[in-house]
Amino acid sequence: MNSKTGFFVHPQGICESVHLGAGCRVWAFAHILAGARLGRDCNICDGVFIENDVVLGDRVTVKNFVALYDGLRVADDVFIGPGVSFANDRYPRSKRYVEHPLTRLERGCSLGAGAVILPGVTVGAFALVAAGAVVTRDVAPFTLVKGNPARPSGLVCICGAPLVPAGDSLVCSAGDWRGLAPEEDMQCSAR
Amino acid sequence: MNSKTGFFVHPQGICESVHLGAGCRVWAFAHILAGARLGRDCNICDGVFIENDVVLGDRVTVKNFVALYDGLRVADDVFIGPGVSFANDRYPRSKRYVEHPLTRLERGCSLGAGAVILPGVTVGAFALVAAGAVVTRDVAPFTLVKGNPARPSGLVCICGAPLVPAGDSLVCSAGDWRGLAPEEDMQCSAR
Amino acid sequence: MNSKTGFFVHPQGICESVHLGAGCRVWAFAHILAGARLGRDCNICDGVFIENDVVLGDRVTVKNFVALYDGLRVADDVFIGPGVSFANDRYPRSKRYVEHPLTRLERGCSLGAGAVILPGVTVGAFALVAAGAVVTRDVAPFTLVKGNPARPSGLVCICGAPLVPAGDSLVCSAGDWRGLAPEEDMQCSAR
Repeated sequence: MNSKTGFFVHPQGICESVHLGAGCRVWAFAHILAGARLGRDCNICDGVFIENDVVLGDRVTVKNFVALYDGLRVADDVFIGPGVSFANDRYPRSKRYVEHPLTRLERGCSLGAGAVILPGVTVGAFALVAAGAVVTRDVAPFTLVKGNPARPSGLVCICGAPLVPAGDSLVCSAGDWRGLAPEEDMQCSAR
Repeated sequence: MNSKTGFFVHPQGICESVHLGAGCRVWAFAHILAGARLGRDCNICDGVFIENDVVLGDRVTVKNFVALYDGLRVADDVFIGPGVSFANDRYPRSKRYVEHPLTRLERGCSLGAGAVILPGVTVGAFALVAAGAVVTRDVAPFTLVKGNPARPSGLVCICGAPLVPAGDSLVCSAGDWRGLAPEEDMQCSAR
Repeated sequence: MNSKTGFFVHPQGICESVHLGAGCRVWAFAHILAGARLGRDCNICDGVFIENDVVLGDRVTVKNFVALYDGLRVADDVFIGPGVSFANDRYPRSKRYVEHPLTRLERGCSLGAGAVILPGVTVGAFALVAAGAVVTRDVAPFTLVKGNPARPSGLVCICGAPLVPAGDSLVCSAGDWRGLAPEEDMQCSAR
């Protein structure tokens, strides 16, 4: 960490923004433009590109080879997997610029490796987008979506694992949570 | 812009070619090999890699993390979205080199984020490949394709928006074009 | 090649490992962490990222914008196409670290452009993962898989081309192999 700024930038990374919270790490061949705003303890992996009109919350992870474009709003504790692609125009044409709809990643959600996110969608809190899914519409909180196009395929726990029915409750398939429906303050031993 | 060459290369980009038209911009961590030929006003974003036997027309946009391999021919006004992957061998094996079939992107077409393009295909003029589509065969002009494998899903306007039936005409769903069939000299207010 | 180490690192690549075999090439904006082990004659293209707990055999090709994460074991003669994404947690959450299951790419297999590989799978010897396929379970040797999720779609030759039935034998659709079933010591003129 740089003791003056409180965050770390690899010697071969480029960080033009000063709006990074304490504890952020920016790795080699990453490039953050001047207007981007990041909360605390974000991890920006090798080769990530972040435009100006992008806001990340605290403890966000962005894995390799992801470009975050103008109009993206990312809440706390979001995981963006390697090779995730964001579009920012549904009907792109070269050199034609349109106003970007906001794309929102809500608190604690995760985007699996190689997922594709269409512009203007909202991925709900603690939702899980499966690896390789192509997300063309909003994803409800705590929902797993998969496929091309992505379709809902069940609920997930706050720990990420699928919830399975047990009598008239749901139970986590990985940890100890049990209840009627997932909610943001649920606790699970696998978290 | 460099006043001598007429094009711009970011200090952390690598451009080994001198065959770039005026107004081209090459951004950080992009790498263009010596034989590549680019027309005027191309925008080569962070992290793009371009091999030698590649030709781009004028006003081509190549978004982040795209590799353009030997055998690719790109006409004017083409948009290549972020994370698009081109294959150049249908049946690849390590260290086995085959002659590359030409892959052609015709004038004004657009490839959405995360699309995958198989070798030897032609994407027709003003066609639109949806984000995440896997293109295994030729795409007709003005045609929208989507899915894995990509299948035709309607026609698009020169502006990129879908064309919808209205009586015995087609109308643009975003702009003011109306007519019997799309064609290269059509005009639309949403362009 | 560096005459002392026996391998080549581009001036704008970063190679922190000394465990590379003779003849390896590491290109611009690639980054190899100190613990990674590579065999002889590997080709690590622009923009590749390799973590510590990764082992590659001899003559492995890794095309652009691929990140190889802890837990990956790659045998000899494997081809990893551009934009392939590996996941290393089935249910990822930011800042939650789990033990990585081993992911194995067996001898001579090929992963097509833009493929996505879920953690813990094994891709069998000389198998072929089609471009854009999302691999969620093991792939048998000499098997072609395609789609999202990836499903078996026939057998391939040691050269990569599909095997087709001919009487009660199989024949290669590209070369001269003919036999009852593919096997690791088969010979084909298209190899």
